[in-house]
Amino acid sequence: MAVKDLTHLLSEESKGRLPSPLKSAFKYYGNDDIVFLGGGLPMADYFPWDKITAHSPAPPFADGIAAKPTDDSNTTVSELAKHKLEDYDIPLARSLQYGFSEGQPELVEFIKEHTKIIHDVPYEDWGLVCSVGNTQSWEATLRTFCNPQDSILVEEYTFSSAIETARALSVNFVPVSMDDNGIIPEKLDELLTNWDSSKPKPKLLYTICTGQNPTGSSLPNDRRKAIYEIACKHDFVIVEDEPYYFLQMETYTKGNTEPPAPISHEDFVAQLVKSFISMDTEGRVVRLDSFSKVLAPGVRLGWIVAQKNLLERFIRLHEVSIQTPSGFTQSIVQALLGRWGQKGYIDWLIGLRKEYTIKRDFTMSSLLKSMPKEVVTFEPPIAGMFFTVKIDATKHPKYATEFESDPLKVETAVYERALKEGCLMIPGSWFRSPNFDATGLTEIFFRGTYAAVPLDTLDTGLERFGKAVATEFGL
Amino acid sequence: MAVKDLTHLLSEESKGRLPSPLKSAFKYYGNDDIVFLGGGLPMADYFPWDKITAHSPAPPFADGIAAKPTDDSNTTVSELAKHKLEDYDIPLARSLQYGFSEGQPELVEFIKEHTKIIHDVPYEDWGLVCSVGNTQSWEATLRTFCNPQDSILVEEYTFSSAIETARALSVNFVPVSMDDNGIIPEKLDELLTNWDSSKPKPKLLYTICTGQNPTGSSLPNDRRKAIYEIACKHDFVIVEDEPYYFLQMETYTKGNTEPPAPISHEDFVAQLVKSFISMDTEGRVVRLDSFSKVLAPGVRLGWIVAQKNLLERFIRLHEVSIQTPSGFTQSIVQALLGRWGQKGYIDWLIGLRKEYTIKRDFTMSSLLKSMPKEVVTFEPPIAGMFFTVKIDATKHPKYATEFESDPLKVETAVYERALKEGCLMIPGSWFRSPNFDATGLTEIFFRGTYAAVPLDTLDTGLERFGKAVATEFGL
Repeated sequence: MAVKDLTHLLSEESKGRLPSPLKSAFKYYGNDDIVFLGGGLPMADYFPWDKITAHSPAPPFADGIAAKPTDDSNTTVSELAKHKLEDYDIPLARSLQYGFSEGQPELVEFIKEHTKIIHDVPYEDWGLVCSVGNTQSWEATLRTFCNPQDSILVEEYTFSSAIETARALSVNFVPVSMDDNGIIPEKLDELLTNWDSSKPKPKLLYTICTGQNPTGSSLPNDRRKAIYEIACKHDFVIVEDEPYYFLQMETYTKGNTEPPAPISHEDFVAQLVKSFISMDTEGRVVRLDSFSKVLAPGVRLGWIVAQKNLLERFIRLHEVSIQTPSGFTQSIVQALLGRWGQKGYIDWLIGLRKEYTIKRDFTMSSLLKSMPKEVVTFEPPIAGMFFTVKIDATKHPKYATEFESDPLKVETAVYERALKEGCLMIPGSWFRSPNFDATGLTEIFFRGTYAAVPLDTLDTGLERFGKAVATEFGL
Repeated sequence: MAVKDLTHLLSEESKGRLPSPLKSAFKYYGNDDIVFLGGGLPMADYFPWDKITAHSPAPPFADGIAAKPTDDSNTTVSELAKHKLEDYDIPLARSLQYGFSEGQPELVEFIKEHTKIIHDVPYEDWGLVCSVGNTQSWEATLRTFCNPQDSILVEEYTFSSAIETARALSVNFVPVSMDDNGIIPEKLDELLTNWDSSKPKPKLLYTICTGQNPTGSSLPNDRRKAIYEIACKHDFVIVEDEPYYFLQMETYTKGNTEPPAPISHEDFVAQLVKSFISMDTEGRVVRLDSFSKVLAPGVRLGWIVAQKNLLERFIRLHEVSIQTPSGFTQSIVQALLGRWGQKGYIDWLIGLRKEYTIKRDFTMSSLLKSMPKEVVTFEPPIAGMFFTVKIDATKHPKYATEFESDPLKVETAVYERALKEGCLMIPGSWFRSPNFDATGLTEIFFRGTYAAVPLDTLDTGLERFGKAVATEFGL
């Protein structure tokens, strides 16, 4: 499989990065024949943490992932010392020291093995670099590829913080049309085929392709395949920002109130949607992955999967910015993953799928009950934390009069009415990409989440939102 | 005290940063009257860490900071749970969640109180923002102030990684002359007074003013005062990068082999060199501080002290890059600091001073014993991890012949000879700022550290280095 040389897509900033001049000296570090007086490393004797113990739940999480560990049978105890305990552990004397820009080897190894199991990357020279989360990974990606005024392709509705990251770097946005299943490949190809040849083509496509933020949509496998071919044809990098990848749920059956049936590891893996990296024969996918939605956001630990040639540029950037993720994070997360093992971790992910399936199913029942059907529609998400309720703005009694046929005025009115009723969902227009074309659009939507609140609170919230819409629309 | 409005010094990137549009919604988060379906926050029930316990030494560290905790009397036990234990603790349910871009409130409060005790910042509207270490703080500072092609003032010898950080952002370097005590204020003033008025003046001065890397020098208080006045006169920001601030040592007495005498907290604080932030009446100092050299580098936790108006721009940058330091780090570090208290932390810093004083004194004895006095000179550092040995290159027998009167050729020969003998110290020229003027320079130097190795190893290393110099110079 021939991986493409994509260095022509690198930014000037990235192309110009030099390795540290001290690097040539550091190759002697740890050499027994040489007294190394080269580095300003404090001695681990002075690190004021002698031992750290963490209590976590244990696989197979029979009572659910939210069950508190109570005794030996359901508790994973991670013991960390300054020096090595278990083979898979990262000793504190190492993780709390400088070094290992790409991440501690034990952790990188675990994530690499996990990536093989889940994505089976189809070329050899791929690797990964740890980051402090997908926001930082995305910023590093932009700086690695984009010069000011370069263009990037984005979903027409997308995560506003990701837009702000890019906007601050003076990047131009080219929104790509979406429907309920995400990006429409034909529209993307059309856009690039008709590209004004006086301007350089976009260097990358940024997509939150599974459980998209804000729309809740997920790209079906056939669209992914088609988009990958378009990337090869028009020579751009696909950046798949995938924090919600493991929040994929069971198929939705209307009216179902049963919890999901047990599932084997094989079926679980087989049912996952295909990532772009899993079909990446040319090495043009940069996958941004993270523990934020799977373990906890505050671990601030993500990773970037890509061809090694490109990753080397990310490492140079990290050396002069974040250096590495926190050593506590690396030691504690790896202690847990090491003890759980790959199988135990998949047990955890299956447990997560179950929780989110229950939440999604409950949300759908609650929406069916609470939303005024005359003006509101919604689809069951198949992944992620978000659902949307879509509203036909033209049905508002004041649409053509007081609201001057402007759907955004209806959006504001509904947002404010819902707040008064005691429920907050985010107006869809807040997620519009710069250069969004709203011509002819009369549908508005709101983004809600079922992730953050208990089910009864969610039910109360949706009832209030439904009431707000009904009141606004005079129903 | 009138703090200056310095917004005219901000970069275009920084000026253009917008707050997240979602921010206006997040003000309703935690409001009991509103069901908040606005944010993609996973529930803390799913964070797989129920309890974390850390064992650390306890104040007053009577047996030294490197002594392992053995029993209740000398052990600080930090217990962390998902929900609050002690008032000063950061519960895991919060630190492992999204939020608090500036750092968790308990930690920010502790560091703020510490900053008051040590620096007594002379204006009101100062604050601090947590970072993932000084490298990232420095990058954030550059991006907050500098456009491409802007000029910055740097010590003529400085930390090569700090240079690389700035170089990648296309900043111009203006080296400032130094002597054994660091920057020479008169030279700095002269440089700016004679500045070519067709080019904008430098926006900031980057200085590692205490235990400078690589020279080991520390700016005396009177020079700091003079430099601060020059900053006010020529309207630039002083960025004091101060990782080594608490590695200030006892006064050096030649031949001393006694360990330092006990010191009171008051005397300890009084003897510290005055930081720039402590004399910052105009709010034009950005102080970069860190736990890397004081607790452990791998905590990846630093902080930026500056006027609040400027810090707000750093927070906007952090929101779209690192977000916050690791929650594990914040919880664990604050659990320790909370239990130690401000006094216990100062006990720790006094213990650190003692260790480094012993190391520095030992190094001086070892240098006196091992270095050939005919060509080598050295000064006792008063702070930091580094010492330098200076060599008169002209005394090399091949200086005018084989080495063509090029001191750098002597430097390379000594470096390689020392490696052969089994000791690595870093050639001083590796730390030269871009645009460094080497005219007339015949002295070379090497940077060594006493921080990273045990004393007997250090002694062996210096003996080897001395032998290498003697051999090279035919002594």
